[in-house]
Amino acid sequence: MNFLEERIVRDGVVKEGNVLKVDSFLNHQMDIGLLNEMGAEFKRRFAGKPINKILTIEASGIGIACIAAQHFNVPVVFAKKSQSINLDGEMYVAEVESFTHKCINHVIVAKKFLTPEDHVLIIDDFLANGCALQGLIQIVQSAGATVEGIGIAIEKGFQSGGRIIRNLGFQLESLAIVDGMDAATGHIEFRPQKDSRQNGKKDKTADSVLKPEECVCRSSTLD
Amino acid sequence: MNFLEERIVRDGVVKEGNVLKVDSFLNHQMDIGLLNEMGAEFKRRFAGKPINKILTIEASGIGIACIAAQHFNVPVVFAKKSQSINLDGEMYVAEVESFTHKCINHVIVAKKFLTPEDHVLIIDDFLANGCALQGLIQIVQSAGATVEGIGIAIEKGFQSGGRIIRNLGFQLESLAIVDGMDAATGHIEFRPQKDSRQNGKKDKTADSVLKPEECVCRSSTLD
Repeated sequence: MNFLEERIVRDGVVKEGNVLKVDSFLNHQMDIGLLNEMGAEFKRRFAGKPINKILTIEASGIGIACIAAQHFNVPVVFAKKSQSINLDGEMYVAEVESFTHKCINHVIVAKKFLTPEDHVLIIDDFLANGCALQGLIQIVQSAGATVEGIGIAIEKGFQSGGRIIRNLGFQLESLAIVDGMDAATGHIEFRPQKDSRQNGKKDKTADSVLKPEECVCRSSTLD
Repeated sequence: MNFLEERIVRDGVVKEGNVLKVDSFLNHQMDIGLLNEMGAEFKRRFAGKPINKILTIEASGIGIACIAAQHFNVPVVFAKKSQSINLDGEMYVAEVESFTHKCINHVIVAKKFLTPEDHVLIIDDFLANGCALQGLIQIVQSAGATVEGIGIAIEKGFQSGGRIIRNLGFQLESLAIVDGMDAATGHIEFRPQKDSRQNGKKDKTADSVLKPEECVCRSSTLD
């Protein structure tokens, strides 16, 4: 087990309905030393990539992204989830409809902060269905920028987001991939990561599809 | 001018209606080097305080708080603005009604992350009416914890939040206090900070009142 998996086993709590609570160290209270270890590991996994910007989404991705940014020496842009009055000017907007949560979210980034010259590392805390992540990818692509990689703290490997995004050809690095959880015993099954690069390879056994089947994403721009 | 005031003059944009846009370096795109300077300055201004936790509120406070936390070597807790399905268990809830924005926001922190043993530094990006900040203070006090200080990036000195919170006796340190803005010329008037401690002193000329007059805050706990 790596440092994050060990921490999940120690302080994570498995709840009914495949809910993994990590709010004591990751997404409500944040252990900054742990975030720093995660940042160093992202830097190792994306070594050699010409990353000049980190993109994340509010709220719990922001802390991870900011600490990681110190290892890359780049600025962070965080996407907003709904239109704010202070977000005037031209914006990239991805409308993400989640069938699981039965809601539509808008993912918004001001145009001036993503250009065709940008080489972007996307960072977020959780990956499950991948709906929010899909919105971020579409926004980067709408800007003509390059997605150099995607760094996730915890991936729910039993949901489809990670498989589909890898099959689309992205280097997706999840520091911990949970393949199963048992709320009765508290047991958490992690996907082996003997070679961390394996994590980022395409899954040849899975079907490649264009979109996660559990969400629909439409992108647009607002002027 | 200090480093933040200089950056505001260089990259901030004054808009009609006393809006100061700092989204290119503070609350949409974030300059991590600048955040680090801010963290060091907060550490200097709150030197000697027994701070063991930083509390902020989603979303744009999180980056500033996480980088500052490295200077204090403490964890960060961020308050959520509305109840999330992953926030079960006992919670402190402050209901903040803003007359200016004509809305009610809930500020929520899980009880397990604030105890009477905690000595809390509250950090946020902006202070204007102080409604959100008032909610955070009430939550810390509901937990029996101690507010050791409040660190703000930019205070709108022409609104009442800062004056009232200082008059309540809190050490409030705003790295830049904007006393006036002119959208036509782009001019920004900063309050002089020759002695940074002056910033944190009570304003003897102002009336001391119990609550910011532009917002009402009711706190409660959910079990």
